[in-house]
This record gives sequence, C-alpha cells and structure tokens, in this order.
Amino acid sequence: MTDSTSSTSTPVAWIAGVGAHAGLGAALARRFAHQGFTVVLTGRTASRIEATAAQIREQNGRAHAITGDVSNEQDVARIAGELRSYGQLRSAIFNAGNAVRAPTLELSPEQFESAWRTNVLGGFLFARAALPLLLEAPGAANDPHGAGSLLYTGATASLRGRPPFAAFASAKAGLRSLSQSLAREFGPRGVHVAHVVIDGGIDGERLRAASPQRAEQAGADGLLNPDAIADSYWQLHRQHRSAWTHELDLRPYREPF
Amino acid sequence: MTDSTSSTSTPVAWIAGVGAHAGLGAALARRFAHQGFTVVLTGRTASRIEATAAQIREQNGRAHAITGDVSNEQDVARIAGELRSYGQLRSAIFNAGNAVRAPTLELSPEQFESAWRTNVLGGFLFARAALPLLLEAPGAANDPHGAGSLLYTGATASLRGRPPFAAFASAKAGLRSLSQSLAREFGPRGVHVAHVVIDGGIDGERLRAASPQRAEQAGADGLLNPDAIADSYWQLHRQHRSAWTHELDLRPYREPF
Amino acid sequence: MTDSTSSTSTPVAWIAGVGAHAGLGAALARRFAHQGFTVVLTGRTASRIEATAAQIREQNGRAHAITGDVSNEQDVARIAGELRSYGQLRSAIFNAGNAVRAPTLELSPEQFESAWRTNVLGGFLFARAALPLLLEAPGAANDPHGAGSLLYTGATASLRGRPPFAAFASAKAGLRSLSQSLAREFGPRGVHVAHVVIDGGIDGERLRAASPQRAEQAGADGLLNPDAIADSYWQLHRQHRSAWTHELDLRPYREPF
Amino acid sequence: MTDSTSSTSTPVAWIAGVGAHAGLGAALARRFAHQGFTVVLTGRTASRIEATAAQIREQNGRAHAITGDVSNEQDVARIAGELRSYGQLRSAIFNAGNAVRAPTLELSPEQFESAWRTNVLGGFLFARAALPLLLEAPGAANDPHGAGSLLYTGATASLRGRPPFAAFASAKAGLRSLSQSLAREFGPRGVHVAHVVIDGGIDGERLRAASPQRAEQAGADGLLNPDAIADSYWQLHRQHRSAWTHELDLRPYREPF
Repeated sequence: MTDSTSSTSTPVAWIAGVGAHAGLGAALARRFAHQGFTVVLTGRTASRIEATAAQIREQNGRAHAITGDVSNEQDVARIAGELRSYGQLRSAIFNAGNAVRAPTLELSPEQFESAWRTNVLGGFLFARAALPLLLEAPGAANDPHGAGSLLYTGATASLRGRPPFAAFASAKAGLRSLSQSLAREFGPRGVHVAHVVIDGGIDGERLRAASPQRAEQAGADGLLNPDAIADSYWQLHRQHRSAWTHELDLRPYREPF
Repeated sequence: MTDSTSSTSTPVAWIAGVGAHAGLGAALARRFAHQGFTVVLTGRTASRIEATAAQIREQNGRAHAITGDVSNEQDVARIAGELRSYGQLRSAIFNAGNAVRAPTLELSPEQFESAWRTNVLGGFLFARAALPLLLEAPGAANDPHGAGSLLYTGATASLRGRPPFAAFASAKAGLRSLSQSLAREFGPRGVHVAHVVIDGGIDGERLRAASPQRAEQAGADGLLNPDAIADSYWQLHRQHRSAWTHELDLRPYREPF
Repeated sequence: MTDSTSSTSTPVAWIAGVGAHAGLGAALARRFAHQGFTVVLTGRTASRIEATAAQIREQNGRAHAITGDVSNEQDVARIAGELRSYGQLRSAIFNAGNAVRAPTLELSPEQFESAWRTNVLGGFLFARAALPLLLEAPGAANDPHGAGSLLYTGATASLRGRPPFAAFASAKAGLRSLSQSLAREFGPRGVHVAHVVIDGGIDGERLRAASPQRAEQAGADGLLNPDAIADSYWQLHRQHRSAWTHELDLRPYREPF
Repeated sequence: MTDSTSSTSTPVAWIAGVGAHAGLGAALARRFAHQGFTVVLTGRTASRIEATAAQIREQNGRAHAITGDVSNEQDVARIAGELRSYGQLRSAIFNAGNAVRAPTLELSPEQFESAWRTNVLGGFLFARAALPLLLEAPGAANDPHGAGSLLYTGATASLRGRPPFAAFASAKAGLRSLSQSLAREFGPRGVHVAHVVIDGGIDGERLRAASPQRAEQAGADGLLNPDAIADSYWQLHRQHRSAWTHELDLRPYREPF
C-alpha cells in the first residue's frame, strides 16, 4: 500500500522526537518509509537518528536525519526549511517528550518550565513549522485524504494529573489541548490533527533499561509494541476525511484501566 | 490482506443491525467479507439482509442472512446456535439502534423503554451470545490478535444527553457503559471490546431519505462515508493486543465539535 | 437560613428512595426539613420511611411518608397527586438505586432489566411527575433561584463501566445521561437539574452491615458522611441561577482517584 | 457563619489575581472577609487591590493589599512571607489569568509562553508558596475541615482547546492538570484542592467594558454573578473532608452546553 495522495512529488513524513532505535520514533520512521514516504528524522542526538536513518536506507527506504531541538525556534525553522528539498510534506509527527518524576513541592520552577518547553512549546513550534508546508499540498482541498496529517504523541498523564508527575502531566495536558485547538482550526482546511494517548509502558529500549523488572512482569504483549503503535499512527494518517478520529487511546490488552 | 488468525477454520463475522443496502451494517458486512470472513447478517427485515448477502455472494464473498430481533432473547440464542455451523466466530459487531425524537415530557414510558430494549438490552444479549463463541477460538490465549473482537456502534448521544433525544441518549450511554465493563472483563481474556462513536450523520439511505437538504448542505465528504467507517472497524479488529483502542470517535473533517 | 423563594405557600421537598435511618435518603429529608421545607419521603418499606418521618416531626419538622415504588408508573402518579396537598414542590430528589454484583455472563436478562427499571425508568418517571409540579411555582420565571431543583444521586459507576457491576453501571450511566438531557431542556425554564456522583462508600447502615471491615479500615472521615452529602445537595438547591452546577463529585479526602 | 476551624489565631485567606472592583477576585475577597477571615489581596495594580481592600475595611472586614506578580518567583515568596504576620493561612485562591485571542499560526512564541507563565507557572508558584503555610495549621490532621483549601479558577477553555484561544486553552488545561496532581497529593494530608470551571461570561467590569452588547443580550442572570460564584468557592472551602468536590462547573441557567 502506498500513499494515496494525488501529488506526484515524493510524500515526506517528518518525525520529531526520534531517540533509541528500539523506541517509538524509530518505529514510526520505519513504518512511513515502508509505505513509500521519504522520512525525515529529528532528534537531539545525531548518532541515534543517523543510525535509524541508515537502517531504513539499508532496507531500500528513503530517510534523512537532521539534528535539532524542537523546543528551539531557530532549530525548528531550520529543519522545516530543509524539508522542502525532499518533497511535499504529508505527515508531521511530534513524538518528543520527557518526564520529570518528583513530589510536587520538590520540583524546581526550572524543572517545571523545562517540562513545558519540551512538550508544549515544542509542540507549538512544530505545528507552526509543519502546517504551512502541509497546507501547500497541491489539490489538498479536493483530496478525500486531505492535506495530510499532524499527529501528537500523548500519554496516560495527558488525561489526568497525578503525583509524582505534576510537571509532566501539566505539560501533556497542555499539549493535548493544543492538538484540539489545531484539530478544530485546521481540520476544515484538510489537515487531520490527532492525538494518540499511549496508555501504558512502551516495550522499547528506554523502559527495558530503566525498569527491567516491569518489562518482565508485563508478560507477553503486556507492554505496547512500538511497531503496533506505529501501525495505528499509519491508520490515522490514511483515514478518509469523512470519518476522522481526533484522539486515539492505545493500551495493552491486560492493562487495568 | 486476510485474517491473521492461526485458526484453520473459516473466520466468521456476525453483524447485527443490518438494514439498508447503503447503510453502515451492509458496509461492515462487505468489508469483513472482502477480508476473507464468512459474514452472517442479522436484521429484522428479511428482504433487506438477504439482498445484501446476495450482493456479497455475487462478488465471491461468503454471506448468510438470518432474520431476527436482537432485543429478543430467543432470537439471539437461535442465531448464535446457527453461527457455529459456519466456522469460528472472530468478530461480532452490534450495530442495532433506533432513535425516538420528542420533548422529554412527551415521551411515553413505552417509548423510553423501547429505546432501552433495542440499544442496551440488545447489546447485552448480543454479548452473552457472542462472547462464549469468541472465547472458544483455538489458541486464542497465545494469539497476539487475541480471541477476536466485539464491537459496538455508538453515536454522539452516547457521550451526552440532549433533548429531544433523552430516551435515545440514555440508552446509548447505557450501551457505552456496558461496552466498558465488557472491555475490562474480557480484554485480559483476549477479546477486544471496543465502542465506536459515530459523531455525525452517516451518508446512507436513511439520512438521504429523511433529510435530503442536510445531505446537500454537508458537501463533499461532509457526511460519514459508510465504507470509511467500516474501514476503521476493520482496523480495530486487526489491532495488535499490545496496543488496543477501546473507544474510537469518527467524525467528518468539517463537523464542528 | 430558610428557603429564599418568594412563594408564600410552604415549600415542599420530595425525597424518593429513602431507606435506612442512617442512610443518605434520611439525611436529605432531615436537612431539607431543617431548612423549613415540608418533606415527603418515598420508599418501598413503610416502616422505614415512617420512622424517619416521625423522627423529623419530633424535632419540629414537617414530614410525611408515602409508600411506593418509583419504577411503577401508577405509584409515582399517585404520590405526585398527594404532593400538591402539602404545598408547592420546590425540590425533588431521586435517590433510589440498587446494585447487582455478578460476572457479566452470569447476569440474567431479568437482573439486567431490573437494574434499569429501578435506576433509569424510575428516574424518568420521577422527572415526569416532578417537573410539571416544579414548573407551576408562581413567579418562577423571574426568581433568581428559579423554579426549584431536580437532583439525582449517582455513583462512581455512573462514570465508568466495570465488572462485576456491568448492570448497575449501565443503568447509572443511563440515568446520568437522562439528567443531562433534563438539565439542558428545563434549565432555561428555571429548573436546576443536577447529578451528584457519590464517589466512595457512604458511612450508613447499609455499608456498615455489609462490610464492617471496610468501614473500619476507612478510618476517620474515610467514608462519606450522609449529613455532609446532604449539605452539598442543599447548596446545589440554593445556588443562584446565574451560576449553576450540573454535576458534582463527592469523595472522601483520602479516597484514591 | 464563621470559619469552623479549631485554630484560635485569625484565619487568613489569600486571593491572588484580584483586579477590578466588580470582578471575581474582589467578590471572593469580600465573601471570605464576611465569613470572618483576614483577606490578603494580591494583584499587579496597586490602586485596584487597595481600593477593594479599603472597601472591605469600611464594612468592618480585615483586608490587606500586597502588590505583586504571581508568575514571578520572588514576588510570590515575598508575599507568602508577609502572610504569616496576619494569622494562619486557611484558604488560598488562585484567580489570575489572561487570554490572548488569535488564529494559532499568528500567535508568536512569546504570546504562547506568556499565557503559560501567568496561568500555569503562576499556579505552580502559588501552590509552592501556599501549601507549606496551609500544612502548618495546628490540629489540621484531626480537623474534619482539614488543613484548609487551595482553589483554582478555571474556564470553559480548561476543558477543551478551541481557536482562537489555543494559547489560553493550552495553559488552562495545564493548570487544571496541576490542580489534579495537587488534589491527589495533598488531599490525604488534609488540604482540599479544587478547580472551579467558570463556564460562561462573568458579569463584571471586564466583560461589560469589552462586550456591552453581549451583556445586554444575556438578559437577567444570563452572565455569572461574581457574588454567586464566590458563594460556591466558600461552600467548597467549608465542605466536610468526608465528601469533597475536586472540580466544580458553574454556568448560567440558560447557557447552552
């Protein structure tokens, strides 16, 4: 299955917040590359995104790595400028984020602000850079798949504040609200904005390194498989514009909720 | 793409609440037939479900029509009994429902009860009949796609009560709650229970007959395309059990929300 | 503080679903009697409601007990007919409800229906009987406290379905939706419809008899005090119509949520 | 009715975000002063908070004005230091906030950040300053009214993002999440944290100056009366700890929702 857009130029997917090879960002990049997209990977650590891009190219995909910090206005503008040379942006996925863990009165104002910068300001700068490019897609107004997709990664904390994650949850709630405003504003113009709530632990490098015991206890398919998550992002991207989903929860079959 | 289950017998999908040829029930039946399922269509009007089944067979699909009323315990038990002869049930979709429209004080207790019987009691009887069959699937406990899916059709009214739909909304909220209980109880046993909120008008025979003007004003892709909806039900069915969605909203790209 | 309505006749409060002396229904009756209302207590067990009414009269309150079943149309109509002789109805509180506890596939259709009859049909019949009486209040259209209140008792299960309470939760969700429809339809006509979610165990006769250990473990103020709950119902009743609350959650300070 | 705490020192209420005399902040200050509290008013414009404090003193209340910016860490710490000299803090109300209105792509990063600083960072700094003082209340652990209250003012935008309020809504959602984390963390320690959603226009100086026509069209009690809102804050403050509300919606009786 290839991208169903009528555009003749190569469709481009921009994945921001790519880290470990075994994480969600890398899985998203592999999936969109597999569907025929040129994927542009953004992250703060050059070696990591370059390794993932190289792996995709080895499997005959088209991938480029551009180092940068999505909470930095200049970085985001620079990356967006480079995107144009690769083709027409059709999907922009914001997967950055980091969690501070502390009792609320022990959080410093700097920690509290840092959570907001990465998660919310980053998501805003990303939208400001990606939307004009998405809206340029030729024929977007009459395409039943619209002008492409702008997808945000959320977490359980997006839906409720809970210690010791007061800073992270506040930021994730702010990002979710932003995605709602964008969905209402740009949906009628053909951009499918959606927010994906990852409601459980991701079976990736980060969790396996930090909590090997948790990974053990979760059992078979008890943690979210990054490729399975990426599949749902892809399905969101290709939804027909007459029946769009704006928020999607994903959780393991035996996660209590 | 065919059903990815390891079972060797033919996978069966049971679609309850099939009405007009151009409606959602028929689109669901066509979609699952297209994926290689034997589909069993249930509805109250024999001529309608038989016509849809015949159309599917003409396109080399396997389809059977069984007339019955899902809010009638005997009918549901009878249909479930017949299902076994067609293969292993892998997906059961409850799409029945009807809306009364009246100021709340003008609703008779009989109308109020009738909405509950069709929407909620029907959904409960359907689950009681389908779940034991789904749980019989060989190898379900170790299958990353689990023991199959039990999917419910919801509406905007599922999420909020609003006149003149007090009876319908109350019933739809009751059905949604039921689907949540079932998801929490049977998810860990491998059955993917999900509730799909159809958040807008469906571009089908019913709406086009009742409100031609509304269909006109909605414009291109302004009403939910039944095939597009059916695609999302199919994607729910095939989600990997490590990343299940339990509720999905679908609405047209320019529907205000 | 007395009722602030301009009506000269005695204000009447109708409390349906009064059971044990130490329960919520009785506390609501005592509170509204204390505020100068004539209270009418409805319940299925004559001895219980008569004992509570007698106790209120001993403390110089005005109270009447009328036996009946709120899920029975004739009973509800008969009680409403008697209400008029006591004065002008200003508050109607639906506190009936009962919970079945069972794995979902072990619930009989009769049990599932019974939960709906008591909780939802009862709430609908109650509204049909109470609203015309509330709307008769003289001067209601210009009274900043409106035409009075119609209050429903909800539970944690109103907000989410969860086994082994599939029947109860489905019914409670249906009742909550009904209260939303009524709020939207009758709010602009001056009736304050609100739904109170009791989000924890009530420190009453029922829980202390059924789960003495739970009461023990909850510690001081770890279960909801019926008089404290009744206070919040009273505050809802007397809210100014420019700032109404339509749903109120109440939970003990150390209940996890 | 006076404050029901067992403390012998004067109870203090800190109201941050006091602006116009006819606004919500001033109404909150008047209400808590009327209940016997020493009220400390914080705002950025000295003349405004001093005028309101003077008016309260004229009516035999105890009121002090301290100028400062709640999004400034030093200002908040300074004000908190002064609070101790007035008595024991029992209620802290964060009522600051400001809304930018613009299409999302026209918002500058500075505007987006500014909304966050005032609404979210301010709310965090306020909690960090107020909570240690609240927790110092003697006997708080055994007091059924707990250690006092920490109350946040929310808005319709707290619950959903919508243009042209993307920045404001994102901030308000972040503040709401923060109040949830605080409620879960400090509730069991006796501090009642609650979030009040003001779901409509406030009938105050700001709205009457900016949209006189809207005030006109709203009709009698069609805008939220600041004193009616303040009454609900007071009722939240005095709730018994066995039955606390953590979020309260307030809207005019004829506001569609």
